[in-house]
Amino acid sequence: MKLLSAEELEAALRDIGAKRYHRLHPFHGLLHSGQCTKGQVQAWALNRYYYQATIPIKDASLIARCEDSALRREWRSRLVDHDGAQEGDGGIARWLKLTDGVGLDRDYVTSLKGLLPGTRFAVDAYVHFVREKSLLEAVASSLTELFSPAIIGERMAGMLAHYDFISQETLAYFDKRPPQAKRDADFALDYVKRNAKTPERQQAVLAALEFKCGVLWSMLDVLAYAYVAPKLVPPGAFVPVDH
Amino acid sequence: MKLLSAEELEAALRDIGAKRYHRLHPFHGLLHSGQCTKGQVQAWALNRYYYQATIPIKDASLIARCEDSALRREWRSRLVDHDGAQEGDGGIARWLKLTDGVGLDRDYVTSLKGLLPGTRFAVDAYVHFVREKSLLEAVASSLTELFSPAIIGERMAGMLAHYDFISQETLAYFDKRPPQAKRDADFALDYVKRNAKTPERQQAVLAALEFKCGVLWSMLDVLAYAYVAPKLVPPGAFVPVDH
Repeated sequence: MKLLSAEELEAALRDIGAKRYHRLHPFHGLLHSGQCTKGQVQAWALNRYYYQATIPIKDASLIARCEDSALRREWRSRLVDHDGAQEGDGGIARWLKLTDGVGLDRDYVTSLKGLLPGTRFAVDAYVHFVREKSLLEAVASSLTELFSPAIIGERMAGMLAHYDFISQETLAYFDKRPPQAKRDADFALDYVKRNAKTPERQQAVLAALEFKCGVLWSMLDVLAYAYVAPKLVPPGAFVPVDH
Repeated sequence: MKLLSAEELEAALRDIGAKRYHRLHPFHGLLHSGQCTKGQVQAWALNRYYYQATIPIKDASLIARCEDSALRREWRSRLVDHDGAQEGDGGIARWLKLTDGVGLDRDYVTSLKGLLPGTRFAVDAYVHFVREKSLLEAVASSLTELFSPAIIGERMAGMLAHYDFISQETLAYFDKRPPQAKRDADFALDYVKRNAKTPERQQAVLAALEFKCGVLWSMLDVLAYAYVAPKLVPPGAFVPVDH
């Protein structure tokens, strides 16, 4: 292990994104190219809801272990983004507009009764990672946001073009995210570059981003297995009408 | 919710097993009927190793939160079963005979470098469940062992009959397990029946067993997606020679 310069560390992080980010997963291709059935889009939205709903718990877990007031203050903006300033505002509420828009019952979605177990395990693994690893690794695990503006762009344009049950309003979540994600990713990348100053800490940062790519990738694996092929829905999970 | 008798509770637990235990998963059928390639058997053994290696951590987590000396003493036998009395003894060591026997490098297996992220998330979810839920739910989550003697019988007979790279010695793990599993499951079932004396606690017990069935099921979902169809191995995970 050698010590990387800040630029080399950033390049290594971006290389992980180029190879492991879930934009490369075939389910993403199916979704944005219009090849999903409505039931598959519902299953995606329902499972992804748990990720969205858990992000503020993940972020609060990070703030809770952080002794630096400035970092806590900075990270707090993520809570605002997801939970909003009042009822009906924020990323989770906008995600529920998406699940409404694709025809899912809101109480069913938020009950999590139809969630794939594999989705729950992947998302919960992210929370546990942030609670149990070093603060530097917890910050680094958020760096998938470096790559999210591109995937969101593909997803929005593709879904609007290809699905008659998707409107601009349904996709309000994605309208708001890119500038938030860019601000957050810029901050986290700068933090990581300033704080990963030994080879060991740099390797831990890279491993944290690989871990997080694994979380997002695994969510699409279990989704594709249950709803695309072989379409084997685990006992108890959501079964779309057109399954 | 109504209060179930001890017999009704046991029947409800057995019904969950009949509907959700991973004996019903198609990968189990492929494995014991000889339809797996050697690479698929390797991938199964490698991923399942992480489950085996984590079980004593799970069991110690349960003992660690248990104020009753008698229960701690009883549960300690599980540590002995998996970690053995000395080096080379116990369930984990016997599992490594299986991974040796199917041609995997032992250092590679124990490094966990080739593990599927979804396997890690499912197994870790089990540990976190045992640490975070009530002691009663932690005990109840072990009750999949009620159903394991049957699956082990099918697996041993089928694998010995169908794979020329599998010997009785390779399967030493499974020789030892059924009596241990029966003893442990009898104890845990009796504990649950004696301690789940309100409708709420009974429902929590049933949900704990459903959760655990989801862990085992999800492990086979991610295995089948990566190694059977569409054979999409997540970046960084084990790729068999015959993949």
